[in-house]
Amino acid sequence: MEGKYFDEATVSVLQEIILHRRDVRGNRFLPTPLEDAVIDQLLMAALNAPSVGFSQPWEFVLIRDQAVKQQVRNSFHEENAKALPQFSEEKQPEYIRLKLEGIMEAPLNIAVFYKPSDKPVLGQTAMPEAGLYSVVCAVQNMWLMARALNIGVGWVSILDAEKVKRILHAPSDNKLVAYLCVGYTNGFYTQPELEILQWEKRKMKEAVVFKEGYY
Amino acid sequence: MEGKYFDEATVSVLQEIILHRRDVRGNRFLPTPLEDAVIDQLLMAALNAPSVGFSQPWEFVLIRDQAVKQQVRNSFHEENAKALPQFSEEKQPEYIRLKLEGIMEAPLNIAVFYKPSDKPVLGQTAMPEAGLYSVVCAVQNMWLMARALNIGVGWVSILDAEKVKRILHAPSDNKLVAYLCVGYTNGFYTQPELEILQWEKRKMKEAVVFKEGYY
Repeated sequence: MEGKYFDEATVSVLQEIILHRRDVRGNRFLPTPLEDAVIDQLLMAALNAPSVGFSQPWEFVLIRDQAVKQQVRNSFHEENAKALPQFSEEKQPEYIRLKLEGIMEAPLNIAVFYKPSDKPVLGQTAMPEAGLYSVVCAVQNMWLMARALNIGVGWVSILDAEKVKRILHAPSDNKLVAYLCVGYTNGFYTQPELEILQWEKRKMKEAVVFKEGYY
Repeated sequence: MEGKYFDEATVSVLQEIILHRRDVRGNRFLPTPLEDAVIDQLLMAALNAPSVGFSQPWEFVLIRDQAVKQQVRNSFHEENAKALPQFSEEKQPEYIRLKLEGIMEAPLNIAVFYKPSDKPVLGQTAMPEAGLYSVVCAVQNMWLMARALNIGVGWVSILDAEKVKRILHAPSDNKLVAYLCVGYTNGFYTQPELEILQWEKRKMKEAVVFKEGYY
Protein backbone atom coordinates (compact mmCIF):
# COMPACT_ATOMS: atom_id res chain seq x y z
CA MET A 1 0.00 0.00 0.00
CA GLU A 2 1.25 3.45 -0.90
CA GLY A 3 1.28 5.80 2.09
CA LYS A 4 1.73 5.16 5.76
CA TYR A 5 0.12 2.09 7.35
CA PHE A 6 -1.06 2.57 10.94
CA ASP A 7 -1.21 -0.25 13.49
CA GLU A 8 -3.94 -0.99 16.04
CA ALA A 9 -2.18 0.96 18.78
CA THR A 10 -2.73 4.12 16.71
CA VAL A 11 -6.48 3.56 16.80
CA SER A 12 -6.44 3.26 20.60
CA VAL A 13 -4.39 6.42 21.01
CA LEU A 14 -6.74 8.45 18.81
CA GLN A 15 -9.76 6.99 20.58
CA GLU A 16 -8.36 8.08 23.95
CA ILE A 17 -7.71 11.61 22.70
CA ILE A 18 -11.23 11.86 21.29
CA LEU A 19 -12.86 10.48 24.45
CA HIS A 20 -10.89 12.74 26.81
CA ARG A 21 -11.27 15.99 24.86
CA ARG A 22 -13.35 18.55 26.76
CA ASP A 23 -14.65 22.06 26.38
CA VAL A 24 -12.66 23.94 29.02
CA ARG A 25 -14.01 27.03 30.79
CA GLY A 26 -12.50 29.79 32.88
CA ASN A 27 -12.69 27.92 36.16
CA ARG A 28 -10.12 25.44 34.86
CA PHE A 29 -7.43 27.48 33.08
CA LEU A 30 -3.99 28.14 34.58
CA PRO A 31 -2.24 31.42 33.72
CA THR A 32 0.97 29.63 32.60
CA PRO A 33 1.89 31.06 29.17
CA LEU A 34 1.95 28.65 26.25
CA GLU A 35 5.36 28.01 24.72
CA ASP A 36 5.83 29.09 21.09
CA ALA A 37 6.65 25.49 20.11
CA VAL A 38 3.32 24.38 21.51
CA ILE A 39 1.40 27.06 19.63
CA ASP A 40 3.22 26.01 16.45
CA GLN A 41 2.09 22.47 17.03
CA LEU A 42 -1.53 23.59 17.36
CA LEU A 43 -1.25 25.64 14.18
CA MET A 44 0.42 22.75 12.33
CA ALA A 45 -2.63 20.62 13.19
CA ALA A 46 -4.95 23.36 11.90
CA LEU A 47 -3.02 23.99 8.68
CA ASN A 48 -3.13 20.29 7.79
CA ALA A 49 -6.89 19.99 8.07
CA PRO A 50 -8.89 19.03 5.00
CA SER A 51 -10.18 21.95 2.96
CA VAL A 52 -12.54 22.08 0.02
CA GLY A 53 -10.52 22.27 -3.21
CA PHE A 54 -7.35 22.62 -1.07
CA SER A 55 -8.49 26.23 -0.58
CA GLN A 56 -7.17 26.47 3.02
CA PRO A 57 -9.63 29.32 3.67
CA TRP A 58 -8.58 29.88 7.30
CA GLU A 59 -7.02 32.77 9.22
CA PHE A 60 -6.04 32.78 12.86
CA VAL A 61 -5.69 35.76 15.18
CA LEU A 62 -3.66 35.02 18.32
CA ILE A 63 -4.73 37.25 21.22
CA ARG A 64 -2.81 37.62 24.48
CA ASP A 65 -3.48 41.31 25.21
CA GLN A 66 -5.86 41.55 28.19
CA ALA A 67 -7.33 44.81 26.85
CA VAL A 68 -8.33 43.15 23.58
CA LYS A 69 -9.71 40.13 25.45
CA GLN A 70 -11.71 42.43 27.73
CA GLN A 71 -13.51 43.91 24.73
CA VAL A 72 -14.40 40.44 23.49
CA ARG A 73 -15.57 39.52 26.96
CA ASN A 74 -17.88 42.52 26.98
CA SER A 75 -19.57 41.10 23.88
CA PHE A 76 -19.92 37.76 25.68
CA HIS A 77 -21.64 39.48 28.60
CA GLU A 78 -24.07 41.29 26.30
CA GLU A 79 -24.95 38.16 24.34
CA ASN A 80 -25.17 36.01 27.45
CA ALA A 81 -27.66 38.46 28.97
CA LYS A 82 -29.77 38.18 25.81
CA ALA A 83 -29.54 34.38 25.92
CA LEU A 84 -30.79 33.87 29.47
CA PRO A 85 -34.51 34.71 28.94
CA GLN A 86 -34.63 32.26 26.02
CA PHE A 87 -34.36 29.33 28.43
CA SER A 88 -37.21 27.97 30.53
CA GLU A 89 -37.69 29.36 34.03
CA GLU A 90 -36.53 26.09 35.59
CA LYS A 91 -33.31 26.16 33.55
CA GLN A 92 -32.45 29.83 34.15
CA PRO A 93 -30.92 29.50 37.65
CA GLU A 94 -28.61 26.76 36.39
CA TYR A 95 -27.76 28.76 33.25
CA ILE A 96 -26.68 31.67 35.46
CA ARG A 97 -24.45 29.41 37.57
CA LEU A 98 -22.60 27.99 34.56
CA LYS A 99 -19.19 29.45 33.70
CA LEU A 100 -19.45 29.52 29.92
CA GLU A 101 -16.14 31.07 28.83
CA GLY A 102 -12.54 31.56 29.90
CA ILE A 103 -11.61 34.58 27.80
CA MET A 104 -9.66 36.45 30.49
CA GLU A 105 -8.38 33.38 32.36
CA ALA A 106 -6.92 31.59 29.32
CA PRO A 107 -3.47 32.97 28.47
CA LEU A 108 -4.19 32.65 24.75
CA ASN A 109 -7.34 33.31 22.74
CA ILE A 110 -7.52 32.34 19.06
CA ALA A 111 -10.10 33.90 16.78
CA VAL A 112 -10.56 31.67 13.75
CA PHE A 113 -11.88 33.23 10.55
CA TYR A 114 -13.09 32.04 7.18
CA LYS A 115 -11.65 34.08 4.33
CA PRO A 116 -13.67 33.62 1.15
CA SER A 117 -11.71 33.07 -2.05
CA ASP A 118 -11.91 35.67 -4.81
CA LYS A 119 -12.11 32.94 -7.45
CA PRO A 120 -14.27 29.80 -7.78
CA VAL A 121 -13.19 26.95 -5.51
CA LEU A 122 -13.26 23.34 -6.65
CA GLY A 123 -15.95 21.54 -4.63
CA GLN A 124 -17.54 24.71 -3.34
CA THR A 125 -19.72 25.56 -6.34
CA ALA A 126 -22.80 23.60 -5.25
CA MET A 127 -22.34 24.02 -1.47
CA PRO A 128 -20.81 27.42 -0.65
CA GLU A 129 -20.85 26.53 3.07
CA ALA A 130 -18.13 23.92 2.43
CA GLY A 131 -15.59 26.71 2.90
CA LEU A 132 -16.81 27.40 6.42
CA TYR A 133 -16.78 23.68 7.14
CA SER A 134 -13.09 23.49 6.16
CA VAL A 135 -12.35 26.06 8.85
CA VAL A 136 -14.26 23.99 11.41
CA CYS A 137 -12.16 20.94 10.48
CA ALA A 138 -9.08 23.04 11.27
CA VAL A 139 -10.56 23.95 14.66
CA GLN A 140 -11.28 20.32 15.48
CA ASN A 141 -7.74 19.28 14.48
CA MET A 142 -6.36 21.97 16.82
CA TRP A 143 -8.69 20.93 19.62
CA LEU A 144 -7.55 17.31 19.46
CA MET A 145 -3.90 18.31 19.24
CA ALA A 146 -4.36 20.56 22.27
CA ARG A 147 -5.82 17.65 24.24
CA ALA A 148 -2.85 15.43 23.27
CA LEU A 149 -0.64 18.23 24.65
CA ASN A 150 -2.77 18.33 27.86
CA ILE A 151 -3.90 21.83 26.90
CA GLY A 152 -7.49 22.92 27.33
CA VAL A 153 -9.60 24.58 24.64
CA GLY A 154 -12.96 26.25 25.15
CA TRP A 155 -15.05 27.34 22.15
CA VAL A 156 -16.99 30.52 22.95
CA SER A 157 -19.98 30.98 20.66
CA ILE A 158 -21.95 33.41 22.83
CA LEU A 159 -20.51 36.43 21.01
CA ASP A 160 -21.60 39.03 18.48
CA ALA A 161 -19.43 38.02 15.52
CA GLU A 162 -19.62 41.49 13.98
CA LYS A 163 -18.39 43.11 17.20
CA VAL A 164 -15.50 40.67 17.45
CA LYS A 165 -14.59 41.45 13.84
CA ARG A 166 -14.52 45.18 14.63
CA ILE A 167 -12.42 44.63 17.77
CA LEU A 168 -9.86 42.68 15.70
CA HIS A 169 -10.06 44.97 12.63
CA ALA A 170 -10.95 41.94 10.51
CA PRO A 171 -11.60 42.40 6.78
CA SER A 172 -15.32 42.87 6.15
CA ASP A 173 -15.69 39.72 4.02
CA ASN A 174 -14.06 37.48 6.62
CA LYS A 175 -16.44 35.47 8.79
CA LEU A 176 -15.74 34.62 12.42
CA VAL A 177 -16.13 30.86 12.73
CA ALA A 178 -14.74 30.17 16.20
CA TYR A 179 -13.38 32.01 19.21
CA LEU A 180 -11.16 29.71 21.27
CA CYS A 181 -9.78 30.06 24.78
CA VAL A 182 -6.54 28.07 25.07
CA GLY A 183 -4.32 27.24 28.03
CA TYR A 184 -3.00 24.69 30.49
CA THR A 185 -5.59 23.56 32.97
CA ASN A 186 -5.88 22.15 36.46
CA GLY A 187 -7.56 19.12 34.93
CA PHE A 188 -10.13 17.79 32.51
CA TYR A 189 -13.55 16.49 33.46
CA THR A 190 -14.03 12.79 32.75
CA GLN A 191 -17.34 13.54 31.00
CA PRO A 192 -18.71 16.66 29.29
CA GLU A 193 -19.66 19.16 32.01
CA LEU A 194 -23.19 19.58 30.64
CA GLU A 195 -23.63 15.82 30.79
CA ILE A 196 -22.44 15.66 34.41
CA LEU A 197 -24.86 18.47 35.31
CA GLN A 198 -27.64 16.68 33.40
CA TRP A 199 -28.26 19.81 31.33
CA GLU A 200 -28.59 17.50 28.30
CA LYS A 201 -28.65 13.71 28.00
CA ARG A 202 -26.25 11.71 25.86
CA LYS A 203 -27.87 10.43 22.67
CA MET A 204 -27.60 6.74 21.93
CA LYS A 205 -26.15 5.59 18.60
CA GLU A 206 -29.41 3.84 17.71
CA ALA A 207 -31.27 7.17 17.86
CA VAL A 208 -29.06 8.92 15.30
CA VAL A 209 -27.97 6.23 12.82
CA PHE A 210 -30.20 5.26 9.88
CA LYS A 211 -29.77 2.76 7.06
CA GLU A 212 -30.24 3.58 3.36
CA GLY A 213 -32.49 6.51 4.26
CA TYR A 214 -34.95 7.75 6.91
CA TYR A 215 -37.36 4.81 7.15
CA MET B 1 -4.26 16.79 37.52
CA GLU B 2 -7.77 15.43 37.21
CA GLY B 3 -8.35 13.55 33.96
CA LYS B 4 -6.00 11.61 31.74
CA TYR B 5 -2.45 12.89 31.19
CA PHE B 6 -1.02 12.19 27.72
CA ASP B 7 2.70 11.70 27.06
CA GLU B 8 4.76 13.06 24.15
CA ALA B 9 4.31 9.87 22.12
CA THR B 10 0.59 10.68 21.92
CA VAL B 11 1.35 14.00 20.26
CA SER B 12 3.50 12.28 17.61
CA VAL B 13 0.83 9.70 16.87
CA LEU B 14 -1.86 12.34 16.40
CA GLN B 15 0.46 14.44 14.28
CA GLU B 16 1.10 11.47 11.97
CA ILE B 17 -2.62 10.77 11.60
CA ILE B 18 -3.32 14.43 10.80
CA LEU B 19 -0.47 14.67 8.29
CA HIS B 20 -1.37 11.43 6.48
CA ARG B 21 -5.15 12.01 6.27
CA ARG B 22 -6.29 12.43 2.65
CA ASP B 23 -9.45 13.04 0.68
CA VAL B 24 -9.90 9.74 -1.14
CA ARG B 25 -11.64 9.48 -4.52
CA GLY B 26 -13.09 6.65 -6.59
CA ASN B 27 -9.82 5.71 -8.27
CA ARG B 28 -8.46 4.60 -4.88
CA PHE B 29 -11.28 2.65 -3.17
CA LEU B 30 -11.31 -1.15 -2.88
CA PRO B 31 -14.70 -2.91 -2.89
CA THR B 32 -13.89 -4.84 0.34
CA PRO B 33 -16.89 -4.36 2.66
CA LEU B 34 -16.25 -2.59 5.97
CA GLU B 35 -16.67 -4.73 9.08
CA ASP B 36 -19.44 -3.69 11.49
CA ALA B 37 -16.85 -3.24 14.27
CA VAL B 38 -14.97 -0.76 12.10
CA ILE B 39 -18.12 1.22 11.30
CA ASP B 40 -18.90 1.30 15.04
CA GLN B 41 -15.44 2.72 15.68
CA LEU B 42 -16.05 5.49 13.13
CA LEU B 43 -19.43 6.28 14.69
CA MET B 44 -17.92 6.27 18.20
CA ALA B 45 -15.48 8.94 17.03
CA ALA B 46 -18.33 11.00 15.59
CA LEU B 47 -20.59 10.68 18.63
CA ASN B 48 -17.82 11.90 20.91
CA ALA B 49 -17.18 15.10 18.99
CA PRO B 50 -17.74 18.43 20.72
CA SER B 51 -21.20 19.90 20.26
CA VAL B 52 -22.62 23.26 21.21
CA GLY B 53 -24.51 22.94 24.50
CA PHE B 54 -23.95 19.14 24.33
CA SER B 55 -26.76 19.19 21.75
CA GLN B 56 -25.28 16.36 19.64
CA PRO B 57 -27.28 17.61 16.64
CA TRP B 58 -26.05 14.95 14.22
CA GLU B 59 -27.70 12.15 12.26
CA PHE B 60 -25.96 9.62 10.03
CA VAL B 61 -27.42 7.67 7.14
CA LEU B 62 -25.35 4.63 6.14
CA ILE B 63 -25.79 3.79 2.47
CA ARG B 64 -24.62 0.56 0.82
CA ASP B 65 -27.41 0.09 -1.73
CA GLN B 66 -26.00 0.72 -5.22
CA ALA B 67 -29.40 1.97 -6.44
CA VAL B 68 -29.50 4.67 -3.75
CA LYS B 69 -25.88 5.60 -4.44
CA GLN B 70 -26.62 5.84 -8.17
CA GLN B 71 -29.28 8.48 -7.50
CA VAL B 72 -26.82 10.51 -5.45
CA ARG B 73 -24.23 10.11 -8.16
CA ASN B 74 -26.69 11.51 -10.70
CA SER B 75 -26.87 14.66 -8.59
CA PHE B 76 -23.07 14.82 -8.57
CA HIS B 77 -23.01 14.64 -12.38
CA GLU B 78 -25.56 17.44 -12.69
CA GLU B 79 -23.77 19.71 -10.24
CA ASN B 80 -20.35 18.91 -11.67
CA ALA B 81 -21.56 19.87 -15.14
CA LYS B 82 -22.76 23.21 -13.72
CA ALA B 83 -19.42 23.72 -11.96
CA LEU B 84 -17.16 23.29 -14.96
CA PRO B 85 -17.90 26.58 -16.80
CA GLN B 86 -17.21 28.51 -13.58
CA PHE B 87 -13.49 27.75 -13.90
CA SER B 88 -11.10 29.51 -16.22
CA GLU B 89 -10.53 28.07 -19.67
CA GLU B 90 -7.00 27.00 -18.75
CA LYS B 91 -8.28 25.11 -15.69
CA GLN B 92 -11.21 23.38 -17.40
CA PRO B 93 -9.30 20.52 -19.08
CA GLU B 94 -7.70 19.64 -15.75
CA TYR B 95 -11.04 19.94 -13.92
CA ILE B 96 -12.55 17.41 -16.37
CA ARG B 97 -9.68 14.97 -15.79
CA LEU B 98 -10.05 15.02 -12.01
CA LYS B 99 -11.97 12.18 -10.37
CA LEU B 100 -13.87 14.10 -7.70
CA GLU B 101 -15.96 11.44 -5.99
CA GLY B 102 -16.08 7.73 -5.21
CA ILE B 103 -19.79 7.27 -4.59
CA MET B 104 -20.19 3.99 -6.47
CA GLU B 105 -16.69 2.65 -5.81
CA ALA B 106 -16.71 3.12 -2.02
CA PRO B 107 -18.55 0.23 -0.32
CA LEU B 108 -20.08 2.63 2.22
CA ASN B 109 -21.45 6.14 1.84
CA ILE B 110 -22.42 8.16 4.93
CA ALA B 111 -24.75 11.14 4.62
CA VAL B 112 -24.28 13.36 7.67
CA PHE B 113 -27.13 15.65 8.66
CA TYR B 114 -27.69 18.49 11.09
CA LYS B 115 -30.95 18.13 12.98
CA PRO B 116 -31.99 21.44 14.55
CA SER B 117 -33.23 21.31 18.12
CA ASP B 118 -36.84 22.24 18.87
CA LYS B 119 -35.75 24.16 21.98
CA PRO B 120 -33.07 26.81 22.60
CA VAL B 121 -29.54 25.38 22.75
CA LEU B 122 -26.97 26.68 25.20
CA GLY B 123 -24.24 28.45 23.23
CA GLN B 124 -26.25 28.61 20.02
CA THR B 125 -28.34 31.70 20.78
CA ALA B 126 -25.90 34.25 19.33
CA MET B 127 -24.44 32.05 16.58
CA PRO B 128 -27.07 29.67 15.18
CA GLU B 129 -24.47 28.19 12.81
CA ALA B 130 -22.68 26.65 15.82
CA GLY B 131 -25.02 23.66 15.45
CA LEU B 132 -23.80 22.98 11.93
CA TYR B 133 -20.23 23.36 13.12
CA SER B 134 -20.77 20.64 15.75
CA VAL B 135 -21.71 18.26 12.96
CA VAL B 136 -18.54 19.17 11.06
CA CYS B 137 -16.48 18.37 14.18
CA ALA B 138 -18.11 14.92 14.17
CA VAL B 139 -17.14 14.47 10.51
CA GLN B 140 -13.53 15.44 11.20
CA ASN B 141 -13.34 13.03 14.16
CA MET B 142 -14.60 10.24 11.88
CA TRP B 143 -12.17 11.20 9.14
CA LEU B 144 -9.17 11.00 11.47
CA MET B 145 -10.39 7.72 12.98
CA ALA B 146 -10.81 6.30 9.48
CA ARG B 147 -7.21 7.23 8.66
CA ALA B 148 -5.96 5.55 11.84
CA LEU B 149 -7.84 2.45 10.64
CA ASN B 150 -6.21 2.81 7.17
CA ILE B 151 -9.64 3.53 5.71
CA GLY B 152 -10.15 6.24 3.13
CA VAL B 153 -12.80 8.95 3.32
CA GLY B 154 -13.78 11.31 0.51
CA TRP B 155 -16.08 14.26 1.20
CA VAL B 156 -18.33 14.96 -1.81
CA SER B 157 -19.67 18.51 -1.79
CA ILE B 158 -20.59 18.74 -5.48
CA LEU B 159 -24.19 17.73 -4.81
CA ASP B 160 -27.62 19.31 -4.66
CA ALA B 161 -28.34 18.98 -0.94
CA GLU B 162 -32.10 19.17 -1.47
CA LYS B 163 -32.01 16.32 -3.99
CA VAL B 164 -29.94 14.16 -1.63
CA LYS B 165 -32.46 14.88 1.12
CA ARG B 166 -35.29 13.72 -1.13
CA ILE B 167 -33.41 10.57 -2.15
CA LEU B 168 -32.89 9.69 1.52
CA HIS B 169 -36.38 10.80 2.65
CA ALA B 170 -34.75 13.15 5.16
CA PRO B 171 -36.96 15.33 7.39
CA SER B 172 -37.44 18.74 5.80
CA ASP B 173 -35.75 20.67 8.62
CA ASN B 174 -32.61 18.50 8.53
CA LYS B 175 -29.67 19.98 6.66
CA LEU B 176 -27.17 17.87 4.71
CA VAL B 177 -23.72 18.81 6.02
CA ALA B 178 -21.50 16.16 4.46
CA TYR B 179 -21.69 13.24 2.06
CA LEU B 180 -18.83 10.84 2.69
CA CYS B 181 -17.47 7.96 0.61
CA VAL B 182 -15.81 5.42 2.91
CA GLY B 183 -13.76 2.32 2.20
CA TYR B 184 -10.43 0.55 2.21
CA THR B 185 -8.04 1.89 -0.40
CA ASN B 186 -5.07 0.82 -2.47
CA GLY B 187 -3.10 3.57 -0.78
CA PHE B 188 -2.98 7.17 0.34
CA TYR B 189 -1.18 9.98 -1.45
CA THR B 190 1.70 11.44 0.53
CA GLN B 191 0.40 14.98 -0.16
CA PRO B 192 -3.08 16.29 -1.00
CA GLU B 193 -3.83 15.38 -4.62
CA LEU B 194 -4.66 18.98 -5.55
CA GLU B 195 -1.28 20.05 -4.15
CA ILE B 196 0.57 17.38 -6.18
CA LEU B 197 -1.28 18.51 -9.32
CA GLN B 198 -0.50 22.15 -8.45
CA TRP B 199 -4.20 23.02 -8.66
CA GLU B 200 -3.68 25.15 -5.53
CA LYS B 201 -0.52 26.10 -3.63
CA ARG B 202 0.01 25.39 0.06
CA LYS B 203 -0.37 28.50 2.20
CA MET B 204 2.45 29.34 4.58
CA LYS B 205 1.72 29.82 8.27
CA GLU B 206 3.00 33.41 8.12
CA ALA B 207 0.29 34.29 5.58
CA VAL B 208 -2.61 33.21 7.75
CA VAL B 209 -1.59 33.93 11.36
CA PHE B 210 -2.07 37.39 12.88
CA LYS B 211 -1.32 38.80 16.31
CA GLU B 212 -3.83 40.74 18.44
CA GLY B 213 -5.78 41.72 15.31
CA TYR B 214 -5.39 42.38 11.59
CA TYR B 215 -2.57 44.93 11.58
